[in-house]
Amino acid sequence: MIDLKPVRGTRDFYPAELRLRHWLFDIWRGTARQFGFEEYDACVLESEALYVRKAGDEITGQLYNFDDKGGRRLALRPEMTPTLARLILQRQRALQFPLKWFSIPQCFRYERMTRGRKREHYQWNLDVIGQPGNVAEVETISALIASLEAMGLTAEHVRLHLNDRRLLTAVLERAGVPEEHHLPVMVVMDKRDKIGGEQLEALLGEQGLSGTQVRRIDEFLAMSSLEEVKTALGGDTPAVAELEALQELLGRVGFGDWVGFDITVVRGLSYYTGTVFELRDRSASLRAICGGGRYDSLLSAFGGDPIPAIGFGFGDVVILELLGDLGLLPQLGTDLDYVVIPFSEAQVPAALELSQKLRRKGLRVDADFALRKLKRALQRASEIGARRAVLLMPDELERGEVVVRDMAKREERRVAMEAFLEE
Amino acid sequence: MIDLKPVRGTRDFYPAELRLRHWLFDIWRGTARQFGFEEYDACVLESEALYVRKAGDEITGQLYNFDDKGGRRLALRPEMTPTLARLILQRQRALQFPLKWFSIPQCFRYERMTRGRKREHYQWNLDVIGQPGNVAEVETISALIASLEAMGLTAEHVRLHLNDRRLLTAVLERAGVPEEHHLPVMVVMDKRDKIGGEQLEALLGEQGLSGTQVRRIDEFLAMSSLEEVKTALGGDTPAVAELEALQELLGRVGFGDWVGFDITVVRGLSYYTGTVFELRDRSASLRAICGGGRYDSLLSAFGGDPIPAIGFGFGDVVILELLGDLGLLPQLGTDLDYVVIPFSEAQVPAALELSQKLRRKGLRVDADFALRKLKRALQRASEIGARRAVLLMPDELERGEVVVRDMAKREERRVAMEAFLEE
Repeated sequence: MIDLKPVRGTRDFYPAELRLRHWLFDIWRGTARQFGFEEYDACVLESEALYVRKAGDEITGQLYNFDDKGGRRLALRPEMTPTLARLILQRQRALQFPLKWFSIPQCFRYERMTRGRKREHYQWNLDVIGQPGNVAEVETISALIASLEAMGLTAEHVRLHLNDRRLLTAVLERAGVPEEHHLPVMVVMDKRDKIGGEQLEALLGEQGLSGTQVRRIDEFLAMSSLEEVKTALGGDTPAVAELEALQELLGRVGFGDWVGFDITVVRGLSYYTGTVFELRDRSASLRAICGGGRYDSLLSAFGGDPIPAIGFGFGDVVILELLGDLGLLPQLGTDLDYVVIPFSEAQVPAALELSQKLRRKGLRVDADFALRKLKRALQRASEIGARRAVLLMPDELERGEVVVRDMAKREERRVAMEAFLEE
Repeated sequence: MIDLKPVRGTRDFYPAELRLRHWLFDIWRGTARQFGFEEYDACVLESEALYVRKAGDEITGQLYNFDDKGGRRLALRPEMTPTLARLILQRQRALQFPLKWFSIPQCFRYERMTRGRKREHYQWNLDVIGQPGNVAEVETISALIASLEAMGLTAEHVRLHLNDRRLLTAVLERAGVPEEHHLPVMVVMDKRDKIGGEQLEALLGEQGLSGTQVRRIDEFLAMSSLEEVKTALGGDTPAVAELEALQELLGRVGFGDWVGFDITVVRGLSYYTGTVFELRDRSASLRAICGGGRYDSLLSAFGGDPIPAIGFGFGDVVILELLGDLGLLPQLGTDLDYVVIPFSEAQVPAALELSQKLRRKGLRVDADFALRKLKRALQRASEIGARRAVLLMPDELERGEVVVRDMAKREERRVAMEAFLEE
């Protein structure tokens, strides 16, 4: 017997699970389209070079990478943003900016599995490219929150934790951390929740930070309001004003309740340059549901012109766990207008023909050729969610009649085949 | 500058190309659902062991395979049927047969690229599992042809070439080929169109066939009607009767014109056991559009109980080329109810707020924050396919009014913001 399990860390989607995935994707896709975003896609296979970065991004060590039969160094994409950058740079002259694009790619990371973390997941990516300033933030975050509303979530269930890399930069400057260490230090700071204080201090020490500097940073990270940080930084820090303006605009479009300042949000990817945010459940029992931010220098880092950009990635695993915990997952069944049921070989050709005629009318029709007894056949018709059954009984069919049964009402009527097809 | 091209043999889907792909997938998905099929999916990463077979299947040499960081031998799936078999065997006791399942997986094969052949493609897989006899063939082939009709194709454009492995077995028996050579000989015969007669004879020679045997087989393969084969085989060959009955049923459901017998259809995969078919364009200028057949022993080969099964794989590459050649590709644009346009910074917050209010009504709304001049802004509104534009002019907005423009009619009207939102 072959191994029947999926590859460790990957998932099978039987029809019931796939219906749920489609439900989620339909919300993502529908929301994105409602906000005027267009969908793109690319192959899950990319050149490994796309993911080789400085600053110790975790993902570089978590790649599914290999040589193809032509000696090319390839990787399964761990995230979509580098692919998005590649697509944009490839047609930079022909594309009309700003672009509002989204995608629902599958992404792979080889990492230790915990609750809400597998080795593959699908991820709604939504990005605005070529639009500077806060409006792109507002449009992106609004689309995110609109999708949450469509799932039945409220601001009581989840919270968008908002921060700005420029604010963190100001904090590091205040702590006397030299600029060339800012990026690697932020990547370490992002691990703050996952590793202990000692390990964090050791890692920051490796980046040349003194104990005093680490404590100074910790003081900032313990501050819970933007007011407090503003006062501690003193004077006008532009990042503070930006964050205030963004929160003001998010309030104006009706999403103020969903959003709060959180100086501990860093995000692990080295390419963020401004706004960063994470969506978390209020009880904080799960990993971040969604994360994103502004990455104005990614395109130029890849060799193109600088283009402002902001976006997020929203995975399918954690949100489905949260919705399950909250009892918000929908009950999704199959949906059939008719099941056509012959009871012996003699009626099989007529059943095929009738099914096809009903389908030509645009109806969803299954036919049951198992030649079961009536009771068992009707039981199965219920199980597969058929609204009506058409019973092809030998005597009735002989007279050109069929029996149509309403499965919910348990009502049957005899009707001439021709009249039935005219209905 | 990084390499901006997709990995060789893979494709990028910019919005225009993805709209086309969605159009095709929607036809596949819609047809399958209309026929009562349920969708499943699995990860593109599988254990390599799933594809290691006897009989020299081409795909084994064309795998994208590698070791993961845990030393597992993995492959990107080259086809979906082994995954389907794995899913069924995993829940064989719990599943209710017959199953009518479909999927639209991406599949990978490392091979030489020619027209209509890339290294990845999406493939509509539709299968009936646990239903013996011709009804499963009729349902499967009917769904296939219904999808072609939905694409605008007719029996003038394409033809379903129908054969049966059992008929080929009878031919090989007649030519005196020992049974243990049947499978590898069929895999070689499948290459008949691609390689020359000499190379074919050499490959068949390797399987122990004499020149006389090869010529005997060639005589059969040159026969163009089932009648002729029937006469040459003499007596009652069961496979002939099965093929006749199947064609009769396909005629009865209205698809007789689309289907014809073709003894040269073999299919390259070693697991087929009965009916085999290929869809080809009438001018035969392209590769096979779709191929499938009955594989009653695959599940038992994987270690499960024997379960009858039939299905097909229908790739996205060749069909889109054919539809393009025939001028049958649809013109697909974006679809926006409104684009909201502010003309200076002062109106931006109002534009964000208005956009969000319109979206809450279920409308599809983009907002253009580029602060262009009126003429240029309207030009872009046309380009992105907006039906109406809402212009936020400073003076009008001051008075609580907006200007709504019907883009097609080029008609504008001034209306109070509140009244507009009530519409």
